[in-house]
Amino acid sequence: MRRAIELAARGRGTTSPNPVVGCVVLDAAGQVVGEGFHAYAGGPHAEVVALRAAGERARGGTAYVTLEPCAHTGRTGPCALALLEAGIARVVVAVSDPNPAAAGGADRLTRHGVAVTTGVLAAEAARGNAEWLTSVRLGRPHVTWKYAATLDGRSAAADGTSQWITSPEARADVHRLRGEADAIIAGIGTVLADDPRLTVRRPPGDGVPADGPGLPAGRSGTGARPPKEGAPATRQPLRVVVDSDARTPLTARVLDGGAPTLIAVAADADADALASRAEVVRLARRRPYGIDLAGLLAELHRRQIVGVLLEGGPTLAGSFLKEGLIDRVVGYLAPALLGEGAAALGPAGAATIAETHRLEFEDVTPTGPDLRLTARPVPLKEL
Amino acid sequence: MRRAIELAARGRGTTSPNPVVGCVVLDAAGQVVGEGFHAYAGGPHAEVVALRAAGERARGGTAYVTLEPCAHTGRTGPCALALLEAGIARVVVAVSDPNPAAAGGADRLTRHGVAVTTGVLAAEAARGNAEWLTSVRLGRPHVTWKYAATLDGRSAAADGTSQWITSPEARADVHRLRGEADAIIAGIGTVLADDPRLTVRRPPGDGVPADGPGLPAGRSGTGARPPKEGAPATRQPLRVVVDSDARTPLTARVLDGGAPTLIAVAADADADALASRAEVVRLARRRPYGIDLAGLLAELHRRQIVGVLLEGGPTLAGSFLKEGLIDRVVGYLAPALLGEGAAALGPAGAATIAETHRLEFEDVTPTGPDLRLTARPVPLKEL
Ligand SMILES: NC(=O)c1ccc[n+]([C@@H]2O[C@H](COP(=O)([O-])OP(=O)(O)OC[C@H]3O[C@@H](n4cnc5c(N)ncnc54)[C@H](OP(=O)(O)O)[C@@H]3O)[C@@H](O)[C@H]2O)c1
Ligand SMILES: NC(=O)c1ccc[n+]([C@@H]2O[C@H](COP(=O)([O-])OP(=O)(O)OC[C@H]3O[C@@H](n4cnc5c(N)ncnc54)[C@H](OP(=O)(O)O)[C@@H]3O)[C@@H](O)[C@H]2O)c1
Repeated sequence: MRRAIELAARGRGTTSPNPVVGCVVLDAAGQVVGEGFHAYAGGPHAEVVALRAAGERARGGTAYVTLEPCAHTGRTGPCALALLEAGIARVVVAVSDPNPAAAGGADRLTRHGVAVTTGVLAAEAARGNAEWLTSVRLGRPHVTWKYAATLDGRSAAADGTSQWITSPEARADVHRLRGEADAIIAGIGTVLADDPRLTVRRPPGDGVPADGPGLPAGRSGTGARPPKEGAPATRQPLRVVVDSDARTPLTARVLDGGAPTLIAVAADADADALASRAEVVRLARRRPYGIDLAGLLAELHRRQIVGVLLEGGPTLAGSFLKEGLIDRVVGYLAPALLGEGAAALGPAGAATIAETHRLEFEDVTPTGPDLRLTARPVPLKEL
Repeated sequence: MRRAIELAARGRGTTSPNPVVGCVVLDAAGQVVGEGFHAYAGGPHAEVVALRAAGERARGGTAYVTLEPCAHTGRTGPCALALLEAGIARVVVAVSDPNPAAAGGADRLTRHGVAVTTGVLAAEAARGNAEWLTSVRLGRPHVTWKYAATLDGRSAAADGTSQWITSPEARADVHRLRGEADAIIAGIGTVLADDPRLTVRRPPGDGVPADGPGLPAGRSGTGARPPKEGAPATRQPLRVVVDSDARTPLTARVLDGGAPTLIAVAADADADALASRAEVVRLARRRPYGIDLAGLLAELHRRQIVGVLLEGGPTLAGSFLKEGLIDRVVGYLAPALLGEGAAALGPAGAATIAETHRLEFEDVTPTGPDLRLTARPVPLKEL
């Protein structure tokens, strides 16, 4: 199952709005005879790939799958059927499928005499599928808040300079995170201060221009994508600017056409000029400031956005946190101290220690000279 | 040598003002026949302990020592002589002794036909002896700044509450740090806000009362201490309050007699009342505020204080950092977010990114649910 989870992870960033799934098929004697993962939406499911590799050797064998095999016929046939036809005798599943449209695969297999075990390495497999599970279970995208800061939690110096607090390695890692997301959200404060592109750019040598123009619009969006093997990832996540009063300058880089862009404004904002350069969605105003973030996520969910990367700034991140809309925090911590300058996080509704937003470290990884910390709010939402 | 460095570390917290030293003696055939470390000031040196264990088997053998054997006669005879008398044929040294009074051991050995190799695992051994090497080379104590904070660098919530941001495990680890220090420094801001005891208290079960009164004064200070083996560490570091205007309340816990206390005040401060409860030292005032911290460290150096733990607060830590007086940073990072509240570090003379105080991670260790980060300023001071 661990191997199946590893395989599943290879699909990260290209399977959305589908889950990542990995599958290992063993023959009757317990030898690995097929491996597969779901590589892109519309492509073959993990089970099908693994069974194809196994061929006749699958008969009487065991399939390890990270997610309950689907019972419905989508763009590809139901995997439960494929497993039955291949003569698989036993199926071991990590996570049950919470999606009503696809669930029932385990039942169907059991009814046809296949032994099904569920819950093996479930937590680990669920973590790998956190985006998709959040989307299905909560009806909104999974939100990763990313920040970069010094040891004393500053994201900029007193004079506003912030380039660069973290290392090239950490910044390259942010592009990896962007590449895994379906949408990148930033606040108007960040757009006005830093004029970011919010596109995925890989370091030179990684096959994609480091800082080149965006890719053709036809290859963007969240629809079907080309397979990942061979060619580097080329899709660009949707860029989202949270901008109550439609203050995004028409010259802003987020409007450069390098990737699709959505500007979220208040219902009463004057956004006529912007509407010619980007898609505009209107949301209710909220107190003490800003627009309805849960409404924004609902809108993104409707657009099949499963995983969102929130890139700040501190004010917007504080609001997301306050509203319980952050599922994962990825912090790049530079071994540096400033003592002054803007904090990485703004007001988040915690005025006293008892109200502290508590998390749990999931991973700590050196990233160049910096440290990448990954944490999730506790109590953990059941995934 | 790695084993010798491990042995040396056992002396941490009890050898000051002496260095920590470890020694492994091999016989002529390369078998380990003796091990030793310097356990407390005034006690036998590592080489002597190891040679004693080895006895006649040391003849023709090799001694691995983390620090160049001394050539002078202090409270114990010179180790170079002991090695010669034991008939050691080869001595492998990690770090040369920078102390003019003790140096020359390697020369003396070489002159008597012993083969001496120096510099083996020198960086690692120097790290273990950072306090003592800083003291000898820079003529001031080694300063470790300790802080506890959330991921967004806050040490307290907006309402001033700060108990507790970090876990019991992290707080117990702070007592370990205190136990290794010769002095603990805090600013008057912290004394007024938190009224800390600044004593070493071990968690229950560790052999010392968790929160009991201080230990008898006779067992405190930085002079000779009882051996560590068997009994738990009982000494209390010197408590130092940086308090320009002698505002420390007479009822403050740092004046409870639980450990010796030094109040550092400005030359013109009215400290008559305090002088009856603690030792008072007078230092020059500095702009924009506070007293001369380098002068304070010089004063501590005169008192044979080798390792200092700076426990803040943010304002005092900022001043130490600005003046280049911090040698090591130990941060306890809770997986928590506040979004508001006091920052862990105050102004430190870095107004723009180019002036950021850069460090290098030396260690990252999970401590209960928290993370302990150890970092040193770069470029590293040659130790
Ligand atoms: N180091 C890092 O990781 C990092 C990342 C990003 C940014 N930054 C830094 O952060 C700074 C900008 O941050 P910022 O805090 O000023 O701006 P921000 O968080 O990027 O944007 C905040 C703005 O978003 C709008 N908004 C709309 N609805 C909102 C809601 N529900 N909650 C909160 N905000 C809402 C508000 O303006 P309107 O109401 O006018 O729309 C608000 O002022 C820059 O200096 C940038 O360099 C650092
Ligand atoms: N989380 C943690 O790790 C941690 C640790 C300690 C404290 N804290 C928190 O920090 C807060 C107190 O910190 P604080 O910043 O107000 O006070 P502080 O740093 O403890 O003390 C600062 C004071 O020390 C005096 N001082 C004398 N010489 C100085 C110099 N050269 N540079 C700087 N200060 C000098 C100054 O007052 P005078 O000139 O009047 O003497 C100054 O106001 C408390 O809320 C406490 O809970 C947190």
